[in-house]
Amino acid sequence: MPATSVGVFKIATSGPGDVSGLMSLISSGTIDPKSILAILGKTEGNGGVNDFTREYAVAALCTALAPHLNLPPHDVEQRIAFVMSGGTEGVLSPHVTVFTRRTVEARPDGRSGKRLSIGMAQTRDLLPEELGRATQITETATAVKAAMADAGISDPADVHFVQIKCPLLTSDRIAAAAARGSKTTTTSAYASMAYSLGASALGVAVALGEIAPGIRDEDVLRRYDLFSKVASTSSGIELMHNVVIVLGNSTSSASEFEIGHAVMKDAIDAAAVMAALNSVGLGTTPQSSRELVNVFAKAEASPDGSVRGFRHTMLEDTDISATRHARAAVGGLLAGLAGNGAVYVSGGAEHQGPAGGGPVAAIARLSS
Amino acid sequence: MPATSVGVFKIATSGPGDVSGLMSLISSGTIDPKSILAILGKTEGNGGVNDFTREYAVAALCTALAPHLNLPPHDVEQRIAFVMSGGTEGVLSPHVTVFTRRTVEARPDGRSGKRLSIGMAQTRDLLPEELGRATQITETATAVKAAMADAGISDPADVHFVQIKCPLLTSDRIAAAAARGSKTTTTSAYASMAYSLGASALGVAVALGEIAPGIRDEDVLRRYDLFSKVASTSSGIELMHNVVIVLGNSTSSASEFEIGHAVMKDAIDAAAVMAALNSVGLGTTPQSSRELVNVFAKAEASPDGSVRGFRHTMLEDTDISATRHARAAVGGLLAGLAGNGAVYVSGGAEHQGPAGGGPVAAIARLSS
Amino acid sequence: MPATSVGVFKIATSGPGDVSGLMSLISSGTIDPKSILAILGKTEGNGGVNDFTREYAVAALCTALAPHLNLPPHDVEQRIAFVMSGGTEGVLSPHVTVFTRRTVEARPDGRSGKRLSIGMAQTRDLLPEELGRATQITETATAVKAAMADAGISDPADVHFVQIKCPLLTSDRIAAAAARGSKTTTTSAYASMAYSLGASALGVAVALGEIAPGIRDEDVLRRYDLFSKVASTSSGIELMHNVVIVLGNSTSSASEFEIGHAVMKDAIDAAAVMAALNSVGLGTTPQSSRELVNVFAKAEASPDGSVRGFRHTMLEDTDISATRHARAAVGGLLAGLAGNGAVYVSGGAEHQGPAGGGPVAAIARLSS
Amino acid sequence: MPATSVGVFKIATSGPGDVSGLMSLISSGTIDPKSILAILGKTEGNGGVNDFTREYAVAALCTALAPHLNLPPHDVEQRIAFVMSGGTEGVLSPHVTVFTRRTVEARPDGRSGKRLSIGMAQTRDLLPEELGRATQITETATAVKAAMADAGISDPADVHFVQIKCPLLTSDRIAAAAARGSKTTTTSAYASMAYSLGASALGVAVALGEIAPGIRDEDVLRRYDLFSKVASTSSGIELMHNVVIVLGNSTSSASEFEIGHAVMKDAIDAAAVMAALNSVGLGTTPQSSRELVNVFAKAEASPDGSVRGFRHTMLEDTDISATRHARAAVGGLLAGLAGNGAVYVSGGAEHQGPAGGGPVAAIARLSS
Repeated sequence: MPATSVGVFKIATSGPGDVSGLMSLISSGTIDPKSILAILGKTEGNGGVNDFTREYAVAALCTALAPHLNLPPHDVEQRIAFVMSGGTEGVLSPHVTVFTRRTVEARPDGRSGKRLSIGMAQTRDLLPEELGRATQITETATAVKAAMADAGISDPADVHFVQIKCPLLTSDRIAAAAARGSKTTTTSAYASMAYSLGASALGVAVALGEIAPGIRDEDVLRRYDLFSKVASTSSGIELMHNVVIVLGNSTSSASEFEIGHAVMKDAIDAAAVMAALNSVGLGTTPQSSRELVNVFAKAEASPDGSVRGFRHTMLEDTDISATRHARAAVGGLLAGLAGNGAVYVSGGAEHQGPAGGGPVAAIARLSS
Repeated sequence: MPATSVGVFKIATSGPGDVSGLMSLISSGTIDPKSILAILGKTEGNGGVNDFTREYAVAALCTALAPHLNLPPHDVEQRIAFVMSGGTEGVLSPHVTVFTRRTVEARPDGRSGKRLSIGMAQTRDLLPEELGRATQITETATAVKAAMADAGISDPADVHFVQIKCPLLTSDRIAAAAARGSKTTTTSAYASMAYSLGASALGVAVALGEIAPGIRDEDVLRRYDLFSKVASTSSGIELMHNVVIVLGNSTSSASEFEIGHAVMKDAIDAAAVMAALNSVGLGTTPQSSRELVNVFAKAEASPDGSVRGFRHTMLEDTDISATRHARAAVGGLLAGLAGNGAVYVSGGAEHQGPAGGGPVAAIARLSS
Repeated sequence: MPATSVGVFKIATSGPGDVSGLMSLISSGTIDPKSILAILGKTEGNGGVNDFTREYAVAALCTALAPHLNLPPHDVEQRIAFVMSGGTEGVLSPHVTVFTRRTVEARPDGRSGKRLSIGMAQTRDLLPEELGRATQITETATAVKAAMADAGISDPADVHFVQIKCPLLTSDRIAAAAARGSKTTTTSAYASMAYSLGASALGVAVALGEIAPGIRDEDVLRRYDLFSKVASTSSGIELMHNVVIVLGNSTSSASEFEIGHAVMKDAIDAAAVMAALNSVGLGTTPQSSRELVNVFAKAEASPDGSVRGFRHTMLEDTDISATRHARAAVGGLLAGLAGNGAVYVSGGAEHQGPAGGGPVAAIARLSS
Repeated sequence: MPATSVGVFKIATSGPGDVSGLMSLISSGTIDPKSILAILGKTEGNGGVNDFTREYAVAALCTALAPHLNLPPHDVEQRIAFVMSGGTEGVLSPHVTVFTRRTVEARPDGRSGKRLSIGMAQTRDLLPEELGRATQITETATAVKAAMADAGISDPADVHFVQIKCPLLTSDRIAAAAARGSKTTTTSAYASMAYSLGASALGVAVALGEIAPGIRDEDVLRRYDLFSKVASTSSGIELMHNVVIVLGNSTSSASEFEIGHAVMKDAIDAAAVMAALNSVGLGTTPQSSRELVNVFAKAEASPDGSVRGFRHTMLEDTDISATRHARAAVGGLLAGLAGNGAVYVSGGAEHQGPAGGGPVAAIARLSS
């Protein structure tokens, strides 16, 4: 019976423009460029509005991959999902994680149980006035279900990380909506990011049954008791639709890898990080036949200004943005428990885990 | 038989000028102001040259304590050792730890074994040209031994944390040395801090037998294989001598508290943090009769630019200083393992633990 | 005929806690501490929410002045208006400007024309729900007129700089309003600053007839075509009323000083700065008998993202706040034209001058 | 008689990767891509070690220009000199200035006098141990003379701006020197920049007779009384030789443009900026037939910590680097006097103008 073979490659980078590691793996035949489905990266900018390391990294990857895919550089972005998260504060180390998928004739002998599977889907183009509102939630939920099907996953419990790339508003888009007599949820490009991120995360929660459907416009960025335990959302100016990447385990996968997750209830939730590692057989009493590939987490400064009753100063710091503080701290904890700093910690966690906390997923390689 | 009773009080602060928590404990009789020996604090500035939260906090404490000690504000600093570490990045929470000591007639019944003891001593005033050199090392070593005696500790193995406050060079001091025909180790005020911090730490290492005596001028800030596992040094412009605070365990102490330590070999050494917690009966299988009071650690960006083989970007960041990055990351790890962010993580670790690592000490309160 | 004698003293500081310059002038008899009405200062913090150099500077001044005024330190703030503006970016130099006023029997011979006069007044305590709304505008306007009378100024054209200190919302104040069934204009402490600053500036504009009365709640922070050309407002957490300081010229003043102003239409309006200097006889063809004391200006990043058609990057910078950028740039221009960096440039200019611009005032000392 | 025609085009950019403005001018035939000699740009990064906007901008320009030059992207850098200066603090606006040169048969009728001319030359590859020392000075001086000849300039008084791009040390280069038994002037990559920048500037000064030849190794970064009034140097990791661009006026040029310069003696030297503008017929009484194209200046925080006797805080700021402060302030002054923020202000001015000051050049377009 045919199966999908999903590969995961973590590659250190020496700068946002460095594609040499990926090119080496392609040259050596380890990675077939045509099998690349998605690349998640950490780049060393500030992770804010003026972080150009993300687009520089994507541009460099597109230019380098284009000849291997027989595409002009600009079209590579249509084929591969790039999610670059800026900010390698503290011990965080710049790297990319490359996900590949291809069809194999059958599972290798002895490979059993559910294994890492990846699926993708996308929504239709959204109107500016739909961003951050119920429509984006509903459309995203539909796409999440399509991506689950693409991944060969039917049980929501088998979904462990849903990475979404979603649009944001620009002054042009706001004006276009206004010209049609429609009002966008906000007139600030910056603020629109949070709305789009939050609505997309709620779409995941609805699709997976974590919350009931019927979320209203006014719940977005207000009812923080509504959240997904596996959503990780990221916005980009270059698209008007949501791209959904579902990572989970499936019997249809012949992968060497397995994924699991937990939910950090706050930024110092070491127990949750350990639970995520344990869920894939790693941690305090690790199985010797398993090895950690990467950990994926969202981090944010708790909006109430404290963590377990102790005041933090992240939200009042005019020198360092709260997202940089949060990534540095959560990165320190994850790196300590994972044993290295090349982990994926991304800032901003609207409706992604409880307020001040966030999802944490781990991928392990099994010996067979 | 008379014994010393050492108290440790961790008090959250709402700002660098906030003394209300300490004043409450004095009003309620919990703390006798005359018994205060030292106050170690974390304030919410940037921890750099222009961090005025440290001097503001000391000024506020001196003003508030002065009437209780019948001293003018300025003289309070002569009586109590204030060590303020700036920088509460990430989840770190501003607070002070107040150490008190008084003599009691005898140990309470049932209190046995070695308990937390604190001792202080100071060197003579050092000449500017002695800072960062063999003389400072030797003088500090002598003072460490005196502070051990003051703490009732004879075995170096019972010393778990040595906090030192040491001078730095200023242009006036450099000029004064030059006028005498003497050359200081550096002509940069900023650079002189590292020299003084490093030489002070080496003095601790010599006193405790961690390294052989006879360290030469040229070893300071060069031979990073020479270090102390318990030294934590901090510089201040207001003094010309080293103040030494030794924290350890002693049979002469009737304290409710116990201290232990470990050494982080790098900034993500979770095992060392657990070892420090375990050393005072806390951690994975904690004794229910014990409770963590505080953890004390030094953090630095590893000078070779990587942690366990993965590149970090702390040293090349023009936006955030490396010490802020390092405190944020190590603070995230410690807070995660300690369960709260009100921990003492101080930046800069010259000859304090191995390069990129540093000492970590823990104080626990026992039920009796 | 009795007259008022107004003094202006610009004093450089070596740090936020440095009061030595002022103390020297008091010791030497140059300044009578009882005549001090207001102190405007530039301190070297970041000018943001976590800038503690402002309160540290005020605390140090209160402690130092208290014995000279026979007041406890805390009461000094009730008697003298302290306005500390954080942020000495670029060439800006930390300093304080001390304003004194006393009654003299008559003008010295030969002193004629209108001279620098200062007047103060304050509103009643405002309710949290009144901040940023029409009530604050109206109450401020009334206080501005009272301060003009106090300064002996009847013609609004003689008013050249109105410095206001106004309250901001805190979570406690917002909750108190809510408990009474009242809604504050915003529930964000940070955002409330802009509302209070803007409404206070509009109050000045109404009082001086720069705009028509009857400004509505919804005009605040929206109708930026409404503004005052002489208002400079600053918020502080320690008060619930507006303190108004009017600076202008009056025939009732026997001062050696004169004040004038102009309006910068954007952040690079060199012509306006020259006009302000010219208005007090300084500038391109300065009168040899006159000397510049200080220049006072407000700076902000133009909200439309450009200056004279060229894009600026201040509003998108996650590393440096826009107010720091704006102070640095306007400070560079003012220092260049004034000839030194000890000028007062304060950030945030809601309804203070046109969007992206702001008022600029100059005080000159005349030879007689 | 054949003449050279030099063009200067200032083009605003919407981001570091934006090449659309240049491409439009190429499409419309306004710029012949083959005539492009050099591109000087301001990009919106932090201007520090981790400013990737510079290399991103160069990569984008190379990719866009490559097909027009029939070169692979990587070879474009060999043909065109790219000098990207990071940091658009305050009102500074991101832009590029494109310099073109081609040969024309004769000067247009009526065009007389000396006009803008541009010449380029380069040194041989330098050894790592030659950087920052007398050899680099001497080799640079030789290249400056060659570039003058290339520009058709014989009188040093006709040289108004010399932009140099020079190498820096890396750990590999330091190791290579050590392997040959040679010691580099510093073992810090960061510190090597200042040495190379300084030695290059001294090379300009020697070539133009501003200082006597025979500068010794130990004078670099020490004898700040030795400097060039027209040098602007910038370092790059991608080359091992110095690239020299001489801008001046020559009778051999048929250009519509003229260049002049002055020297800022400190960061607030408005008079020098006016002098530079006046030198090309602009400023207080501008000739109506002339229009400013761009101003080029170097900025630095004065090393003695003060400007005209007033303390600045740039060197002690742990939050914002001194170079960012300096660019913001000098940028504010230049933009104010030039009338727009798209001016070229670059940080770091070792031996480029007096300590704390720097050269300032202006280019004007004449009507004929």
